[in-house]
Amino acid sequence: MFESAELGHKIDKATYDAQVPKLREDLLNAQFDLAQKAKFPVIILVGGVDGAGKGETVNLLNAWMDPRHIQAHAMGEKSDEERERPHMWRYWRVLPPKGKIGVFFGSWYTAPIVQRVIGKSKASELNQSIDEINHFEKMLTNEGALIIKFWFHLSKETQRKRLKSLEKDPKTRWRVTDLDWQRFKLYDKFRKVSEHALRAASTAEAPWIVVEGADARYRNLTTGKILLEALRKRLDHSAQAAPANAAPLHAPIDRLNVFDKLDMSQKLAKKKFDAELEKYQGKLNLLTRDERFRNLSVIALFEGSDAGGKGGAIRRITGALDARHYRIIPVAAPTEEERAQPYLWRFWRHLPHNGHVTIFDRSWYGRVLVERVEKFCSEADWMRAYSELNDFEEQLVKNNTVLVKFWLAITKDEQLRRFKEREKTGFKRFKITEEDWRNRKKWNAYETAVCDMVDRTSTEIAPWTLVEANDKNFARIKILKTLCQQIEAAMERV
Amino acid sequence: MFESAELGHKIDKATYDAQVPKLREDLLNAQFDLAQKAKFPVIILVGGVDGAGKGETVNLLNAWMDPRHIQAHAMGEKSDEERERPHMWRYWRVLPPKGKIGVFFGSWYTAPIVQRVIGKSKASELNQSIDEINHFEKMLTNEGALIIKFWFHLSKETQRKRLKSLEKDPKTRWRVTDLDWQRFKLYDKFRKVSEHALRAASTAEAPWIVVEGADARYRNLTTGKILLEALRKRLDHSAQAAPANAAPLHAPIDRLNVFDKLDMSQKLAKKKFDAELEKYQGKLNLLTRDERFRNLSVIALFEGSDAGGKGGAIRRITGALDARHYRIIPVAAPTEEERAQPYLWRFWRHLPHNGHVTIFDRSWYGRVLVERVEKFCSEADWMRAYSELNDFEEQLVKNNTVLVKFWLAITKDEQLRRFKEREKTGFKRFKITEEDWRNRKKWNAYETAVCDMVDRTSTEIAPWTLVEANDKNFARIKILKTLCQQIEAAMERV
Repeated sequence: MFESAELGHKIDKATYDAQVPKLREDLLNAQFDLAQKAKFPVIILVGGVDGAGKGETVNLLNAWMDPRHIQAHAMGEKSDEERERPHMWRYWRVLPPKGKIGVFFGSWYTAPIVQRVIGKSKASELNQSIDEINHFEKMLTNEGALIIKFWFHLSKETQRKRLKSLEKDPKTRWRVTDLDWQRFKLYDKFRKVSEHALRAASTAEAPWIVVEGADARYRNLTTGKILLEALRKRLDHSAQAAPANAAPLHAPIDRLNVFDKLDMSQKLAKKKFDAELEKYQGKLNLLTRDERFRNLSVIALFEGSDAGGKGGAIRRITGALDARHYRIIPVAAPTEEERAQPYLWRFWRHLPHNGHVTIFDRSWYGRVLVERVEKFCSEADWMRAYSELNDFEEQLVKNNTVLVKFWLAITKDEQLRRFKEREKTGFKRFKITEEDWRNRKKWNAYETAVCDMVDRTSTEIAPWTLVEANDKNFARIKILKTLCQQIEAAMERV
Repeated sequence: MFESAELGHKIDKATYDAQVPKLREDLLNAQFDLAQKAKFPVIILVGGVDGAGKGETVNLLNAWMDPRHIQAHAMGEKSDEERERPHMWRYWRVLPPKGKIGVFFGSWYTAPIVQRVIGKSKASELNQSIDEINHFEKMLTNEGALIIKFWFHLSKETQRKRLKSLEKDPKTRWRVTDLDWQRFKLYDKFRKVSEHALRAASTAEAPWIVVEGADARYRNLTTGKILLEALRKRLDHSAQAAPANAAPLHAPIDRLNVFDKLDMSQKLAKKKFDAELEKYQGKLNLLTRDERFRNLSVIALFEGSDAGGKGGAIRRITGALDARHYRIIPVAAPTEEERAQPYLWRFWRHLPHNGHVTIFDRSWYGRVLVERVEKFCSEADWMRAYSELNDFEEQLVKNNTVLVKFWLAITKDEQLRRFKEREKTGFKRFKITEEDWRNRKKWNAYETAVCDMVDRTSTEIAPWTLVEANDKNFARIKILKTLCQQIEAAMERV
């Protein structure tokens, strides 16, 4: 991949000076259109060999364009708040919103490549990281992001010369440290590993672009032109949602589904319930005070039919917890800032610290439930969501998050009974709306969506727990018990 | 202040059980109205003596109300991201938005009181902290927040008994640590200091409410009733903006103002400019690479007439910086999430880390400029803004932030010349809008607002630098030079 970036590309001063003014004007105009139309975010990754002009390029982009709409991020050491979240959290929190440009100096590629170069990871681990990165970038581009990945390259000999010449000049001497020379010794290894990573991560949506870094004029002009072309292409040909070419999902032809296997008649008598409630709330409380709990976090996620009893179940959990250590996130319509970001951003921002519990009252599954049924998103969007959600959850679980997913199932008759009851009780008046009645009419469509969801996202690492919730007592205990079991199991693993 | 909280208040079980269901229903209804109407945030502070039921009360509120709209915050150790910002940053980042309730367990009172109790601060320092807190809370209530401050008290004897009885019970033994007994020894000191703090911070808008904590039923019922009453009062009698009773501001009767003293004819020839630019950009670059710079942060704030040259000046600064270490915040219309918070929240969220530079292109002064002139806020709002902005800036400066404020002044004729030029140049087409022409018609009103702003917010710790900007070269050098000087001065202090 690096051959044509070792040819000694050069641009003479006259050519450069002649081309730059027009290029800058075009770039500014493109950026203006981007900011005004604000239809998509631009993510620029800057990677490559030391001394090949990475930092200079980031500064150049700021100098050439309107720096008010560019955010450059150097991803150095993680802060403690970042260390307690999944690895990608630090990137999610600074993703550029629509209309803005985010420049990542040191990106999600850095750690996997460096780890492999210094021998701290295996080839297979690097491949897996690249695989995850491809999924992540695919999600971003599906969400509309324009991703441009620049790799600045120098041949070994050029890099050596460059370090030497920087060292000689008193003005730039500070830029060359012992570490640079140590890293230079790893040049061959670094070249090999990054060549492999770049190739594996050069997808149709977001290919790596290798730029020879030795000559500043060549580097600048190349970078600027590629950036301009990419921006213009996207601005002038508004991307259309790709049609879902996959085979359509369909309900089993015999209509038998996972809910048919649930015994909806299960009940728990009041007395038994009181005893079990005390038992499992006590247990949950003890678990959260266990020393090992400080290295975990918990996400409990509730989905279910309207009037399925999510709120009541959640209160039985929080009743066992210290209010200082949990947070309930009721998932409602996204805010303006959330709408300017990829779908999952609104959930990433709420991920718990270690030792904390976050309860999602409705969740990221909205995409494959309400958004699918009500056609708030395209078929292509909800079809790709299954694997995106699985990827997301895998990252949570890898980060020692105990992820427990509950679906509260009630029968159609029971729902009717509860709706009517709610209408009668002043206390609960705010729990029943016109929308609930409308949704009820779509019972079958929702059921299909739920079954697809369970089929596609009940994974080994994050299985769905289907809760027979016609009897509230039974449901609440099943939920508490499941939660305790999963936390216990995780503690034993940690 | 504690006398009536040492009387041994008690509520019997029958009374309690009779009153609680209605109270809970009323609380839920009030909370529902709050969430639906979403007109103001509720901030509940929970403080007091150990063992007096602080934690229990927080849990109680969550149990009685809808926990999805309550966020409880235990303010423990600061994270490293918090340590690099002004002390109040950690509170600002978790303030509840309109329609929500935030419960602070351990609040902005904790540190000042504890520091004084353990002898790490002087009486005068405590008083100053309380003073700052009063300003902060006054700002919050002016912004519409409902602040309810509960202090749970126990007499010394009751506290001793309570710790003993917790220790005896195997179920609660874990709750009593050596630290608790150490703190018990400081009871008298703590009582004295907190009594003083509570009295000094019991303002008309946000008085402390002392509740005897010994009897749980008394405590719960009292807390619930006070909370309900406070909520209902605010919900049912929508607060009106207080009229500004202060004497109106007026321009000096002879119309002589600070701008008349500026020599607007100052110029810098191209050659001199080039030399100075290189000199001060080089200097600025060196300063930001100085080791001492890692303990500082810089905020450079730009206000000025339309077409005053803010953008160009900013680019001369960023040209000297590494893009990874600065961020430009163009201040535009607030987002939905920002509108749900106090005015200053949108700026607090962008405060720089140590070693970083944040440049505000327009700033918090919008309130006393455009919002005043265009009547986007009430007179009371912009009148109180002067002292709020001064308070805010004082916190920045105390936190080793170098705060540099520039006003770019041009004459009315020069503005006209630039507007016309911009209309002609395609490159600058996006820099001139209808709004600019409209604003120009209000030149005098803006001038009055600017003069008031300078008079009231050019303070010793954060003076305004008025920049004669008819000549762009002169302005740019003056700005770079000032910035360098202020960073240097700060470095010598650190």
